[in-house]
Amino acid sequence: MSNGHIFVGELIGTALLILLGGGVCAAVTLKRSKAFGAGWVAIAFGWGFAVMIAAYVSIHLSGAHLNPAVTLAIAVKSGAWSQVPVYLAGQILGAMLGAFLVWLTYLGQFQANEEPTLGIFSTGPEIRNPIQNLVTEIIGTLVLCILILTEGLTPGLGLSGMGVLITALGVVGIGFSLGGPTGYAINPVRDLGPRIVHSLLPIPNKGGSDWGYAWIPVAGPLIGGALAGLLYNVAF
Amino acid sequence: MSNGHIFVGELIGTALLILLGGGVCAAVTLKRSKAFGAGWVAIAFGWGFAVMIAAYVSIHLSGAHLNPAVTLAIAVKSGAWSQVPVYLAGQILGAMLGAFLVWLTYLGQFQANEEPTLGIFSTGPEIRNPIQNLVTEIIGTLVLCILILTEGLTPGLGLSGMGVLITALGVVGIGFSLGGPTGYAINPVRDLGPRIVHSLLPIPNKGGSDWGYAWIPVAGPLIGGALAGLLYNVAF
Amino acid sequence: MSNGHIFVGELIGTALLILLGGGVCAAVTLKRSKAFGAGWVAIAFGWGFAVMIAAYVSIHLSGAHLNPAVTLAIAVKSGAWSQVPVYLAGQILGAMLGAFLVWLTYLGQFQANEEPTLGIFSTGPEIRNPIQNLVTEIIGTLVLCILILTEGLTPGLGLSGMGVLITALGVVGIGFSLGGPTGYAINPVRDLGPRIVHSLLPIPNKGGSDWGYAWIPVAGPLIGGALAGLLYNVAF
Amino acid sequence: MSNGHIFVGELIGTALLILLGGGVCAAVTLKRSKAFGAGWVAIAFGWGFAVMIAAYVSIHLSGAHLNPAVTLAIAVKSGAWSQVPVYLAGQILGAMLGAFLVWLTYLGQFQANEEPTLGIFSTGPEIRNPIQNLVTEIIGTLVLCILILTEGLTPGLGLSGMGVLITALGVVGIGFSLGGPTGYAINPVRDLGPRIVHSLLPIPNKGGSDWGYAWIPVAGPLIGGALAGLLYNVAF
Repeated sequence: MSNGHIFVGELIGTALLILLGGGVCAAVTLKRSKAFGAGWVAIAFGWGFAVMIAAYVSIHLSGAHLNPAVTLAIAVKSGAWSQVPVYLAGQILGAMLGAFLVWLTYLGQFQANEEPTLGIFSTGPEIRNPIQNLVTEIIGTLVLCILILTEGLTPGLGLSGMGVLITALGVVGIGFSLGGPTGYAINPVRDLGPRIVHSLLPIPNKGGSDWGYAWIPVAGPLIGGALAGLLYNVAF
Repeated sequence: MSNGHIFVGELIGTALLILLGGGVCAAVTLKRSKAFGAGWVAIAFGWGFAVMIAAYVSIHLSGAHLNPAVTLAIAVKSGAWSQVPVYLAGQILGAMLGAFLVWLTYLGQFQANEEPTLGIFSTGPEIRNPIQNLVTEIIGTLVLCILILTEGLTPGLGLSGMGVLITALGVVGIGFSLGGPTGYAINPVRDLGPRIVHSLLPIPNKGGSDWGYAWIPVAGPLIGGALAGLLYNVAF
Repeated sequence: MSNGHIFVGELIGTALLILLGGGVCAAVTLKRSKAFGAGWVAIAFGWGFAVMIAAYVSIHLSGAHLNPAVTLAIAVKSGAWSQVPVYLAGQILGAMLGAFLVWLTYLGQFQANEEPTLGIFSTGPEIRNPIQNLVTEIIGTLVLCILILTEGLTPGLGLSGMGVLITALGVVGIGFSLGGPTGYAINPVRDLGPRIVHSLLPIPNKGGSDWGYAWIPVAGPLIGGALAGLLYNVAF
Repeated sequence: MSNGHIFVGELIGTALLILLGGGVCAAVTLKRSKAFGAGWVAIAFGWGFAVMIAAYVSIHLSGAHLNPAVTLAIAVKSGAWSQVPVYLAGQILGAMLGAFLVWLTYLGQFQANEEPTLGIFSTGPEIRNPIQNLVTEIIGTLVLCILILTEGLTPGLGLSGMGVLITALGVVGIGFSLGGPTGYAINPVRDLGPRIVHSLLPIPNKGGSDWGYAWIPVAGPLIGGALAGLLYNVAF
């Protein structure tokens, strides 16, 4: 794939991912939203279908990584590193664009906001403990990436076709099962891009952006992705 | 496809879409319904499976647009405009037929009704602001249409076969993520057809039909569909 | 298919359908069940996956009708009536067997029962009105059967393979959208078989079997199935 | 398949199954988890997607039994018993590893624990009655195994490809419909492995490991799996 296609695909795809993923957090959290209070079942399915839509739209252009941890896992598996910077550039810019679109979609609700809103943009721990939170993010991302890496081995799945649906439903499952302690970033730009946008947007009563925690949902997923690549090379 | 097949397919398909989509709104909202209070998770899945059933039934006849915004997006993409009026005619009549069938299915509940019922038929904003509501509808429809337009690029998906399921699950996701502010019309006839029927039906205590808002769920989705066609031509 | 295969397939398949469908009603309704109070979302998905499991197991033997309304719709469409009695015999016996297995699975809960239990076995209206309830059942079954009849027209779906999954998810959607007034029998034996078993089982405080209503979930689905066959022959 | 591949596949796959399945129990049960109170809908879908992820990752190595009852059902069906011990070894060790990973993922929550935690690791009856609980587990496992055994008969499903998704959704359905009385172990190592780990882990206020019940979720699923193999040989 050309660098141009990769950049555009990751930009559009990651923007869709964050628009829809951040969107469900806004939908469930903001008081004057029709989905207010729909809870964790909505969150888990919402993020999964966000992955599904984003990946089906962008897979023809870039292969739909949409996540530096996935890009890293695939690079460790394949040994091909030259296009990694193009992927990362599209991903971080797309994540920021997506977070901006969440704000635009829920503009009325944000203007009427009276509570901290960081949870709509980025993740945070229920019990703050850097090592424990890091381990939780490593485990969640390892599960995600080993699923993606091994899909290519199943006839009729692969990275195109139904594999995207399986990955998306896998993200629903990871949300249900492993999201409790930290809110499952499992993707560095999913957390960092919206956090930057949160710090810039003029939202009343928005609260702080918790930069002290920001390294964990970046480092944890990258370690998990690298471990998945290594595990794949050893066991499969 | 012949004009006759298109008209019949869009008529049957859109009637099914609105029967099932309006039906889940009735099921969750009307007090003497077994699904009363099932909430937004039921709404989002209900509308998604409504799309799935309606599209699998009608795809052989008309390609299952069932939505003027989709028809517009495909026309912008393909440059073929001659059958657009036939699609629109089937869609608006089908939407009205579907809304009538919702009333018939829940006739006992409607006869015992004591509260405004427009929300079962048409969409409305949580925070009324024409420009903001329009933007929200544009963004939601853009996501829907770019997903549909790009599905044809994935082997084994396309507009037939599994692509219908993916579109349906995508509508579940759009409902979860982008439906909070306006109730996600993302389809002009999904809103306008039932609104006409609501204004005509003899439902006790039915409340007003809010015609002042009616242009937004028509204009927003049409703009979103056109933008999706343009984006497809530029980026894919 | 031989009569023996049809009988065995419909017997096993309908037993599984009612075991799992009645099972989710028991799970959500009986007080000392872990799923107590899980509500309509559980009911709708539970019945859909009941169809999925039952149909995938029996499709190789009998084509997995599991429902006299489906058998009737296919007979009207195809004109082949000779094996209809074999289908019906397997279906009604299977439905009774399935209802017995629900009782066996939840035996401890039934022995501790203190409330009417007919709702676990059979359907009933929220607002009792024979004509209205009949119309609701006709519409729901018409949607189910027209979906099944047209699936054969989609490449890669058909009655085998993924078509079963689509039918199952369609049943989830019908439950969400059209189940509110009568509890969506949409299948004569799904209601009649368990009603017979309910009247026979020694459940404390089980309440009456409401035989006055019993003809509606038999007649409505049969009319709906026949109408689906006629609609298919006219429109598709 | 070689013994080495089988052992590694069952070890990794069963570890993923229990990590994700135990994980959703932790997520919904532990007080300082974001999914606290999400209820039975989350539990049923969470366990289903746990099966999906675990089986897609391990199917290339071992065929993804991940369950001694499935291994037994397949051995009864096929008559091939020589590799059964290798399957069992990978499964029990994987289940213990998975339970350990649940503890690691939710370490902060477990350290703050104030209530009995066995329900996160192993199953238990709502109404304690050995014969009844055994029958419930037999029926649930029989449904699971007959679904898996017959999938190979459907074109395009089989044990690879989409069959894994169908099995996973089937587990969602079994959870909704048959999980109420005993919590649906339907897999001996899913219960025994985490019970051993629960008895060893240093969790404050963790409560007892209820060894008196432990034989039921081992014996019931094994009987159910064997019956499924026999039923398959007779009826299909």
